[in-house]
Amino acid sequence: MTLLVVGSIALDSISTPFGETADALGGSAVYFSIAGSLLTPVQVVGVIGRDYPVQELRQWEDRGIDWSAVEQADGESFRWKGKYSYDLQNRETLETRLGVFASFKPRIADGLRDTKYVFLGNIDPELQLGVLDQITSPTLVACDTMNYWIQSKRETLMRLLQRIDVLMVNDSEARELSGDWNIYRAARWILRHGPKMAVIKQGEYGAVLVTDDSVFYIPAFPLEEVFDPTGAGDAFAGGFMGHLARTDDVTPANLRQAMVYGAAMGSFAVEEFSIERFHAIGLAEVTSRVRAFGDLVRFEVTPEGPLTE
Amino acid sequence: MTLLVVGSIALDSISTPFGETADALGGSAVYFSIAGSLLTPVQVVGVIGRDYPVQELRQWEDRGIDWSAVEQADGESFRWKGKYSYDLQNRETLETRLGVFASFKPRIADGLRDTKYVFLGNIDPELQLGVLDQITSPTLVACDTMNYWIQSKRETLMRLLQRIDVLMVNDSEARELSGDWNIYRAARWILRHGPKMAVIKQGEYGAVLVTDDSVFYIPAFPLEEVFDPTGAGDAFAGGFMGHLARTDDVTPANLRQAMVYGAAMGSFAVEEFSIERFHAIGLAEVTSRVRAFGDLVRFEVTPEGPLTE
Repeated sequence: MTLLVVGSIALDSISTPFGETADALGGSAVYFSIAGSLLTPVQVVGVIGRDYPVQELRQWEDRGIDWSAVEQADGESFRWKGKYSYDLQNRETLETRLGVFASFKPRIADGLRDTKYVFLGNIDPELQLGVLDQITSPTLVACDTMNYWIQSKRETLMRLLQRIDVLMVNDSEARELSGDWNIYRAARWILRHGPKMAVIKQGEYGAVLVTDDSVFYIPAFPLEEVFDPTGAGDAFAGGFMGHLARTDDVTPANLRQAMVYGAAMGSFAVEEFSIERFHAIGLAEVTSRVRAFGDLVRFEVTPEGPLTE
Repeated sequence: MTLLVVGSIALDSISTPFGETADALGGSAVYFSIAGSLLTPVQVVGVIGRDYPVQELRQWEDRGIDWSAVEQADGESFRWKGKYSYDLQNRETLETRLGVFASFKPRIADGLRDTKYVFLGNIDPELQLGVLDQITSPTLVACDTMNYWIQSKRETLMRLLQRIDVLMVNDSEARELSGDWNIYRAARWILRHGPKMAVIKQGEYGAVLVTDDSVFYIPAFPLEEVFDPTGAGDAFAGGFMGHLARTDDVTPANLRQAMVYGAAMGSFAVEEFSIERFHAIGLAEVTSRVRAFGDLVRFEVTPEGPLTE
C-alpha cells in the first residue's frame, strides 16, 4: 500500500560535536519518506521554495518516493539551524525561517484521497485537520505534533486527536499535552482523548506503544557512535508506518513489529548527518537490524518457572 | 546457593511529592537482601548502631535472610536524609550521618568464606577489596560503587575492577568512571578494565547488560504510580544475584533471565516507601511480573522476513 505523508521539507544547518552541515536535506516529510520508502512507496505532500536543491530530492525517486505532489512556491525554502550539546542530549534552535512554509495549505489531489495509510508530520494542527478533511476512508492515520502547537493551538489539537488513530510524540510532548509527568499516565490520558494508540518516543532510550490493553517497549538500538540525532523521530515514524502500509495489517502483533521497524530506521538516521546514512541502506540492512533488535531484548522464562522447585 | 551481601544497613528519612518517612529501613544491604531472599537464602554482612530497630530486620528472617553476621557497634546507625523532585527525576541529599558505618571493617566468618555468589554493595572500595581477600573461590562477584568513590578512590577502584565479574552501576556512574558519555562505549571501557560484564542501570528507562559478545536491554516495568525510587538499584541487584545464586547458573541465557528478575524487584521497590512493598510480595508475584516483562518486549519477526516478497 502507498503511504501518504504531509510535512516539512527543509534545509537544515546543524552543528554537533562531530562537525557541521549547512543547508542539508531535512524536515519531517523528508526523513519520514526516505525511511518509509525502504518498505513501501511513499507519496509526499509539502512545499519548497525556488531555492530548494530539487535534484537532491529526485535522487530518492528510484526508491519509491513520489515528490510530484510537492509544490514549488515563490520564496525561500523552510530553514532550520540548530546546535547540539557535547553529549547530544540537548539542542538549541539558533534560527527558524519558515519561508514558503508560512503560507502552506496542503492540497490532496483527487488521486491521493483514497490513501489508506496517512502520516501527518508536525505542522499546524489546523492544516493537519485540513488534510484529514480531504482523505476519504483511511485505514490508519498517525500524527506528530510539538510543544509549540500544544501551547498555541490546544483546542484545535484536541479536535484533531478525535480523528486520528495514533498519536506519535516524544516524552516531553506527551507530558506537556497531558499535564502528567508519568509517561504511562500521559499515554492513558491520550487514549481517553481520541487515539486508539499512543507511541511515545524517548530518544536514546527507545519508544513505547500503549493501547487500551497492551504496553510494548522497544529500546533504542545500542549505538556506540551517534552522529546527529536530527530526524530520528520522523525516521521512526517512517519505519512504523512503512511497515504497516507494506503489510496492510494493523493487528496488535504487526503493530509491535512496526515499532521495531521504526526503531531500526531511527537508529540509522542518527548514524550520520542529515539523511546521509540512508544512501547505504537497503532492505537487507533493515532486516538485519530488525533481527538484531530481537537479540537485544530476547529472553526465555522456563514455562513452569524456576520458582516452582 | 546462598548469596552473600556486604553493604550499608541504614535508616532513611525520605521526602517525596507523595509523603515523608523518617528512620525507615534502608541501605544497600537491606534492599538487596529483602529482594534477593525472595529467590534464595541471603547472608548479610554489615554494621548497625545500638539505636537500630533490630526487630524490624528480624521480621524478614523467615524469608531466608540471615542477619547473624551483622555487627552491632556502639554508636549511632548510618542515617540518610533525602528529598525527591516533583517528578522523582532528581534527588537532593539533605544529610548523611555515617555513625558506626564510618569505622566499619567487614569480617567474613570462616563459615561464609566459601560463598559462591557475592554482592559488594556501594561502600569504600578498600573495604570491598578487603571482603574479596576473605572469599576463597567465588563463582560470581558483582559490585556497585558511586561517584564519590570514583572521584576519591579511583586507583583502589581500578584494582577492584580486576577482581570482580560484574560491575553494576547507574549510567551517571558509568559515564564518570569511563569519561565517556555514551553508555555503550562506557560499558566497553569497563569490560577492558576487568569485569566480564557491565550492568548499567538507567532508572525509569531500564537496564542494560553488556558482555564481550552480547548486549541485552530490559526496559523498566511500566508503572503508572511510582512512590519512592530509593533502593531500586539495590533491589535490582538482589533480584539479579538472587536468580543466579538460586539457579547456580551463569550461562548467557540465565544472565538475561537474571536481568529480568532484577528489573522485577526494582519495579516492586519503587511502588511504596522504603521496603514496604515487599511485605506483600511472594514468589507468585515475582513470577507474574517476570512474565509480564516477557509481554512488554515480545515481538515476532517472520522467519523469512516480510521484506522478501
